[in-house]
Amino acid sequence: MRMVHKYGGSSVATLDKIEAIARHIAGLHRDGHELVVVCSAMGKTTNGLIAMAEQISDAPNKRELDALLSTGEIQTVTLMAMALQKLGCAAVSMTGFQSGFITNDVHSRAFIKEVRTDRIERCLNEGKVVVAAGFQGITEDGDITTLGRGGSDTTAVALAAALGCRCEIYTDVDAVYTVDPRLYPDARALPRISYEEMMEMSACGAGVLETRCVELAKKYGVELYLGRTLEAERKGTVVMAQEKIMFEDMPVTGISIKDGCTIVSFPPMETASGSVAAVFSLIARSHINLDIINQNLVGEKIAFSFSCPDGQAGELCAALKGDAALSALRPDIRSGYTQISVVGVGMATHTGVAAKVFGVLAEEGISYYQITTSEISISFTIDPCNKSKAVGALSRAFGL
Amino acid sequence: MRMVHKYGGSSVATLDKIEAIARHIAGLHRDGHELVVVCSAMGKTTNGLIAMAEQISDAPNKRELDALLSTGEIQTVTLMAMALQKLGCAAVSMTGFQSGFITNDVHSRAFIKEVRTDRIERCLNEGKVVVAAGFQGITEDGDITTLGRGGSDTTAVALAAALGCRCEIYTDVDAVYTVDPRLYPDARALPRISYEEMMEMSACGAGVLETRCVELAKKYGVELYLGRTLEAERKGTVVMAQEKIMFEDMPVTGISIKDGCTIVSFPPMETASGSVAAVFSLIARSHINLDIINQNLVGEKIAFSFSCPDGQAGELCAALKGDAALSALRPDIRSGYTQISVVGVGMATHTGVAAKVFGVLAEEGISYYQITTSEISISFTIDPCNKSKAVGALSRAFGL
Repeated sequence: MRMVHKYGGSSVATLDKIEAIARHIAGLHRDGHELVVVCSAMGKTTNGLIAMAEQISDAPNKRELDALLSTGEIQTVTLMAMALQKLGCAAVSMTGFQSGFITNDVHSRAFIKEVRTDRIERCLNEGKVVVAAGFQGITEDGDITTLGRGGSDTTAVALAAALGCRCEIYTDVDAVYTVDPRLYPDARALPRISYEEMMEMSACGAGVLETRCVELAKKYGVELYLGRTLEAERKGTVVMAQEKIMFEDMPVTGISIKDGCTIVSFPPMETASGSVAAVFSLIARSHINLDIINQNLVGEKIAFSFSCPDGQAGELCAALKGDAALSALRPDIRSGYTQISVVGVGMATHTGVAAKVFGVLAEEGISYYQITTSEISISFTIDPCNKSKAVGALSRAFGL
Repeated sequence: MRMVHKYGGSSVATLDKIEAIARHIAGLHRDGHELVVVCSAMGKTTNGLIAMAEQISDAPNKRELDALLSTGEIQTVTLMAMALQKLGCAAVSMTGFQSGFITNDVHSRAFIKEVRTDRIERCLNEGKVVVAAGFQGITEDGDITTLGRGGSDTTAVALAAALGCRCEIYTDVDAVYTVDPRLYPDARALPRISYEEMMEMSACGAGVLETRCVELAKKYGVELYLGRTLEAERKGTVVMAQEKIMFEDMPVTGISIKDGCTIVSFPPMETASGSVAAVFSLIARSHINLDIINQNLVGEKIAFSFSCPDGQAGELCAALKGDAALSALRPDIRSGYTQISVVGVGMATHTGVAAKVFGVLAEEGISYYQITTSEISISFTIDPCNKSKAVGALSRAFGL
């Protein structure tokens, strides 16, 4: 069977670990499988490279940073290919350029425009294992780009989509849980989850997969398996289409937690002023990812707020300051909040979930700030000190 | 003025050193110079990468090794570009692919087929300093290659040739000396040397520049300056055309020393047997660089020997063993010899140099093995224990 395997940074942190994975892959190859192996940079390599860049400049040029960071994955894939060859398994490494990942030119958060798989197809047809560098691509002009957070997962899913095969993502986490088991030890591993729920869980910080990657899997119908690297038993989670999952009489599948949220609130402004549109346009130009967006009518005016990761707050502030009209509005910017999301496809057909969620918070005396809801999720920001209390109480309330 | 600067691994070994060079380059750029800066990998990076590859496999695949090693130079050039930008100097890094270094596909020792400078020219015209990764290229098929020993010097000279400008090569050595000053402290620095002499000195292990790089400079008339990185005074050596150097009444310009020579001797064989041709064909296929080649008639038979670097002796032995006919000849392979070369353009017009060389050796009681001569050099192998004695005696004899 043709498949894409992806191994994260901690799974390939040492040469011993690379060799262990190579033995596993060589075995699958001997059994007749066609394999594309996507690797991240070894262990903390990427952090080390970023630290060097930051030692030189507070704001290193993003084109240069992308080219610098791309070297981490190239090192892993060449070593992995050597380890496979050493075992007598035909293998070939590929950089983002060689594996045909054409992206736009938004450095550090590039989007894939096209995956030109002809070279990979040729190598697979020659009976070789293809070891592809995750996280990286190249623009039409030949500049090296990176795909941003979770980029190697996106590489793996995009390859599986382009090659029409399944995708297995291996990390040091053994499955997707109802709640982060570090916070709530009674959490259950989910054998399967729908794309939609996984997206909500990801967007809300479950930390296993980036939303974008699940979105891509959903769009191309790529079945994802998430499990622990080299675990003998198959105990992980399959992410698949909602229709294929038997409906279970449970409104909530899981709770996800995201730390480090910045909340930006604008004081009430005139509806006709165009300020809200100006804010969105500014955010889009700055390539900042918004999470929660809230807007309420206050009398004749609009109260407007949104949240973004703390890491992007600096960029955002700089952009706001650069715009005289918007900075005149004196937005209130506060960092360090925690966002909790309660997720479940059952929510769409069960009533009273929101009432139950906010009832539990009230009982526990937990203040909540922004709230946003989708068909299958309810998210809100709280003070980080209330995180454990909120997760525990909600998990008990929904039987997770 | 347009120029290419090249900085070696020890010159860019730390971020502080990279930043110091960036300050120097930014100053030259402010003064209106157009600059291409070629960098090697930082310090011992390449050795570290090779060590990782060798931990995985005794004979790592060369295609994979090239891609692995290429990451070292990419790291340096991206960091150098960031350091320049931090100083307000417009700069752009380029990998071998981006700087248009098209090579053949002989991995680990690739030859440059073409340098497509349009992208570099465009960036120079935009007023940017171009920081180009040394040592690496790309095949027409998009595979990453490296240029072998001294590859970054070759990159610099090839760029200077393609851009029609001068080339300055900076290292931790302040000039080319008549003899290695570590061996013979009275050695003199040479203010200028001809391409031909430099080639002989290089081929014979002077260690400052690879022959191939000087050959390229000579072919395209690129004037080379060799000096110490960031030294205020210009005390280095200019390598230039022989015609431009005033003739000095001195037959010998310098002595170079190369350690780690393997001597391979075949017992006398039939002239008509084709064995010598078979040996050469085998060597060419194995991409081994021969140094001295000796052939003598012994009665009706041919006595044939050659030398190569110790590092290639393993490959050579493997190749010889793989050829039944040649291994039946039982060649005698001995490693660890030292090759001494006495070099000087004056030699062509002065007589008695060889007599003087071998007279000195006889006086000192030093045995010599293979001998080879060119228009401007006399080379021979000796036991390494006699190295200092031979160099001292010859330096005194020729007034170096």
